[in-house]
Amino acid sequence: MPQYDLVGIGNALVDVVAQTDDAFIAASGFAKGSMTLVDAAAADALYRRMPAGIEASGGSCANTMAGFASLGGRGAYIGKVSDDQFGGVFRHDMRAIGCDFDTPAADGGPPTGRCLVLVTPDAQRTMCTHLGAACTLAPGDLDRAVLRNAKVVYMEGYLFDQPAAQQAFAEAAEIVHDAGGEVSVTLSDGFCVDRHRAAFRHLVEEHIDILFANEVEIRSLYQADGFDDALRQVRGQCRVACLTRSEKGAVVVSGEEMHIVEAEPVGAVIDTTGAGDQFAAGFLYGYTRNMSLDRCARIGAVAAAEVIQHYGARPAADLRALVKQKLGA
Amino acid sequence: MPQYDLVGIGNALVDVVAQTDDAFIAASGFAKGSMTLVDAAAADALYRRMPAGIEASGGSCANTMAGFASLGGRGAYIGKVSDDQFGGVFRHDMRAIGCDFDTPAADGGPPTGRCLVLVTPDAQRTMCTHLGAACTLAPGDLDRAVLRNAKVVYMEGYLFDQPAAQQAFAEAAEIVHDAGGEVSVTLSDGFCVDRHRAAFRHLVEEHIDILFANEVEIRSLYQADGFDDALRQVRGQCRVACLTRSEKGAVVVSGEEMHIVEAEPVGAVIDTTGAGDQFAAGFLYGYTRNMSLDRCARIGAVAAAEVIQHYGARPAADLRALVKQKLGA
Repeated sequence: MPQYDLVGIGNALVDVVAQTDDAFIAASGFAKGSMTLVDAAAADALYRRMPAGIEASGGSCANTMAGFASLGGRGAYIGKVSDDQFGGVFRHDMRAIGCDFDTPAADGGPPTGRCLVLVTPDAQRTMCTHLGAACTLAPGDLDRAVLRNAKVVYMEGYLFDQPAAQQAFAEAAEIVHDAGGEVSVTLSDGFCVDRHRAAFRHLVEEHIDILFANEVEIRSLYQADGFDDALRQVRGQCRVACLTRSEKGAVVVSGEEMHIVEAEPVGAVIDTTGAGDQFAAGFLYGYTRNMSLDRCARIGAVAAAEVIQHYGARPAADLRALVKQKLGA
Repeated sequence: MPQYDLVGIGNALVDVVAQTDDAFIAASGFAKGSMTLVDAAAADALYRRMPAGIEASGGSCANTMAGFASLGGRGAYIGKVSDDQFGGVFRHDMRAIGCDFDTPAADGGPPTGRCLVLVTPDAQRTMCTHLGAACTLAPGDLDRAVLRNAKVVYMEGYLFDQPAAQQAFAEAAEIVHDAGGEVSVTLSDGFCVDRHRAAFRHLVEEHIDILFANEVEIRSLYQADGFDDALRQVRGQCRVACLTRSEKGAVVVSGEEMHIVEAEPVGAVIDTTGAGDQFAAGFLYGYTRNMSLDRCARIGAVAAAEVIQHYGARPAADLRALVKQKLGA
């Protein structure tokens, strides 16, 4: 059994990405910039109205694992696809980037999950997800040997939208902690935090070593008046909190330490999908190699800057080479 | 029944596009720049070795129909997908771009066809196609009412790789001619011409009004020593011959007329997949609006230039607006 730097657990999804305009988002009734869960009928209805798009493997945590592999990290992924074409695409892409992925596909049942990603000209993305097979992820899908060999397990807050996945989340955290590893989570989405605020607060206080959240999410978690208030409240609740602020960069707090890292300069921002996922990839790459928190965050900023300059939520460039070029070896 | 400017018949395929290097192509044993037909096992074997990619609706003729719709032309497509996820993606994308597509999906049988597209850093594409459901296209799939209402029918030479599709090709040409429309074809690929040279020569001499071919294809058709020799041989064989020459532009011959059109200036060339398909889209858009052959070719050059500056074989920009900007209203 190999030693894994990072094991990710998340909703295995194939993204269907299309360019739209604000009027289309408004007419759809979805909150711009959010992720809305929908059933199969609603996903089909939206898809019928959507422009032509491209398909690419997605899923927040899986995107992070792709970035982590591109940086040279050794990772494994746990998530649920169906035994269909999109499931085959998802599995191929995870393995092709060098991330182990051996969770068996669901045989029959709902199809592989889809995330309909609507990108507006301002580079914002509005997502509409039909979880499909992803929502069948349950504790029985956890590969305990893999988790026991992980330095860090990373999970997405979206898992909290399904009770069985939430249970898998808790069990994975326990396995990893018992084996001496660390547990990290991203809050995923402001509305997701709204849906599960009490559970998230309990989790952060009791079980999380490394927390990722953007400004909206951390303010929602603590129902805080502003960023500074949220920052004050999260301090000391977990070993490390990484708060990302889009073009304002990121703040990392750990005990008495605080690092403010500027965003990487970018050219045209095309599609912000995956920015947070890639920040986490870069940060955790540095973290699992015992780099300083400041350097971890700077690697995260480089990875996030790369992904927002093209369509799609996974890196198009070789992140390892990019980081070397931007930050030195 | 609407009046169609253009009805396309082709192999309905979903492209799986990945970036590779020359060493990967060489190790695969495929001729760089060519399209090779493979069975399901060979496609699976190559896919397992391929890098992570993106999926997008493809198929040479369907790409042309996408460009034609983006220019504002009224089109319909005839081709065969299966009743699976890739088939759903293909149908959605045709309809979303405004092209009618009502050929029933095959129920059971082989899956929707896939074209594995390997793009090298020099922007060349090498394709490996498993036709799947596309190869079940047969005369019974032709919608005669649609064909009788077409100004022009456009078909891809790749159809010649399957006897039933070749038969559908011949029947469609007859239906369109009987109704007073015109018949156009693209030779598709030099190796495809090699495989079916006699049939293609007979077709061009007897049934084709508008021929599209690149330099390799037209030289292969006439086993010509050079471009000028091929040009001399094709003159008079069909009403219009459009010969594309990549960065050297295009030559259009029709009776005594000859137009030499320069390639549109481009920035970085990223992926040449679909250049010929989009030239045909632009040319046929002008042709079905009775524009001069020179202007038809210039619209083709603008459409081709757009598609080679990004990944994927269909336009990313609004071609109608682009042509207006480049060539005037």
